[in-house]
Amino acid sequence: MAGYNTIRAFAPATVANVACGFDVFGLALEQPGDEVELTLNHTGRVIIRAITGDNGCLPAEASRNTAGIALLAMLQSVASGLGAELVLHKKLPLGSGMGSSAASAVAALVAANASLGNPLSPRELIPFALVAEQEACGAAHADNVAPALLGGFVLIRDAQHGDMINIPVPPDLRCVVVHPHISINTRQARQALRHYIRLSDATRQWANTAALVAAMYEQNYELLSRALCDVVAEPVRSLFVPGFDRVKQAALYAGALGCSLSGSGPSMFALCRSEENGYQVCRAMQQAFHDAGLPSDGFVSAVNTTGARVVNQEKTP
Amino acid sequence: MAGYNTIRAFAPATVANVACGFDVFGLALEQPGDEVELTLNHTGRVIIRAITGDNGCLPAEASRNTAGIALLAMLQSVASGLGAELVLHKKLPLGSGMGSSAASAVAALVAANASLGNPLSPRELIPFALVAEQEACGAAHADNVAPALLGGFVLIRDAQHGDMINIPVPPDLRCVVVHPHISINTRQARQALRHYIRLSDATRQWANTAALVAAMYEQNYELLSRALCDVVAEPVRSLFVPGFDRVKQAALYAGALGCSLSGSGPSMFALCRSEENGYQVCRAMQQAFHDAGLPSDGFVSAVNTTGARVVNQEKTP
Repeated sequence: MAGYNTIRAFAPATVANVACGFDVFGLALEQPGDEVELTLNHTGRVIIRAITGDNGCLPAEASRNTAGIALLAMLQSVASGLGAELVLHKKLPLGSGMGSSAASAVAALVAANASLGNPLSPRELIPFALVAEQEACGAAHADNVAPALLGGFVLIRDAQHGDMINIPVPPDLRCVVVHPHISINTRQARQALRHYIRLSDATRQWANTAALVAAMYEQNYELLSRALCDVVAEPVRSLFVPGFDRVKQAALYAGALGCSLSGSGPSMFALCRSEENGYQVCRAMQQAFHDAGLPSDGFVSAVNTTGARVVNQEKTP
Repeated sequence: MAGYNTIRAFAPATVANVACGFDVFGLALEQPGDEVELTLNHTGRVIIRAITGDNGCLPAEASRNTAGIALLAMLQSVASGLGAELVLHKKLPLGSGMGSSAASAVAALVAANASLGNPLSPRELIPFALVAEQEACGAAHADNVAPALLGGFVLIRDAQHGDMINIPVPPDLRCVVVHPHISINTRQARQALRHYIRLSDATRQWANTAALVAAMYEQNYELLSRALCDVVAEPVRSLFVPGFDRVKQAALYAGALGCSLSGSGPSMFALCRSEENGYQVCRAMQQAFHDAGLPSDGFVSAVNTTGARVVNQEKTP
């Protein structure tokens, strides 16, 4: 019985919600991202051999780790009897709001799929990643998983039925993400939201999601800037992030088109109209976090248009 | 002192909300529409000399008629000391959900503006029409006024600040409007809505407004069809329209992309992918209203891309 190649796959960080699009918008970064080295076998079991970069925080049991959960779901569905060994290289901070749990699951799925000769399209991998998100965040939301897999700026119209639309982005657009060194439990941040919202707030929000899509098609930065406004989640979730207001002000003052929480935070993102402005905004946001007493990491990236990918393959000895 | 020309202006019927876009989307039809004949003078007063087509239902006092209210607001602002006489030709049914009050106001404004040599752009006329809408409907919503003035499919991101975006529509798209012979008070229909809505419903709605805009840019009829879904206003307001469910089913069965209330009803609209299908859908919807015991009028129209306009001018004798 022939051995399987070891496959290394990369899945990028993602910014979910993108201000107005709570639970429906997500975009992928070029960098950073998680990597998985995966080797299929015939044991019928998934073993996580090692995890690097997590400071020992992540469970190594496959059934409690998003990479393992997604992989188990996929193998059960399309390759019954197969198993896998994997090494997980966490390069995304945990609990950061940068789609860390989604990136690990997606990288594992892309590696396994490649190892099998790509029987599934990236879209067909999404349901397996959602199984893992359900476990990690308490809700099967696709706003990290879909952009991590597909790349680009994704509108999730209906995750259950796989209705996801890639929205074009202006080529000069840059995304800044700044991660302050505190962590937030996504499940708790989600629970902090109200189950009912004002109709008037909802109406503003759906005007803005519509406007944001129009702005992307028109490459209209002024409209994009006005549409990057969240009156539903940000007012609640920003309370969990020390310095939120001053960081947002710093980003806007430095020329950002808009700034809000990345996912449920604590990371904050900003969209900018050029690489140069991206670095200015990133510095301003990090300085503002510093002034609020928080060290941080900063990233400036174009929107990743290709999504998760295999980064190399080597034959097992 | 030179006399002013009599100006005749047309303003089209409009479909507000367009399913998912409660209070933020509106589109203009080619036909039908209201017409106003207007002659400026130096009396400082606005007189409605006659109204045709309203069966005597509309108030002729300028301060209680939307055409008069809008005109008074405009003249006060830009032509203090001037007055006007006007004849209002109502071709839109009252209380129909086809933007009847907005059309009269807009036609009067366009006629007056033309008579003054067009000192204001169509966008600059919107605030005066909103004064009239506030009076007629109890809320200064622009989702009829903006498309009647500007034409096309309009996203009203922020009516107060004049932030309105024209969204391109596929050239073959046709809009069917069927008006059953009952009338609904817009103010009451608005009051029937809940002030708070579920976050999960709101999320579906803003996914759909975003998807509808993407569908228009992509000319993607399948996506447009999926996005034409209203989980907020339709479930409540449809209760006021006898036969709503069977009319909607008939439209979809006849091939419509989607079907919902036009504005707050009782008229219902459907979007269709061709003129031919538009007529099939219109017949099916009228038959279904007939089966529910209601006579109706039906209209099939392209989206009006020019908006309200002057239809002729004649020198006063």
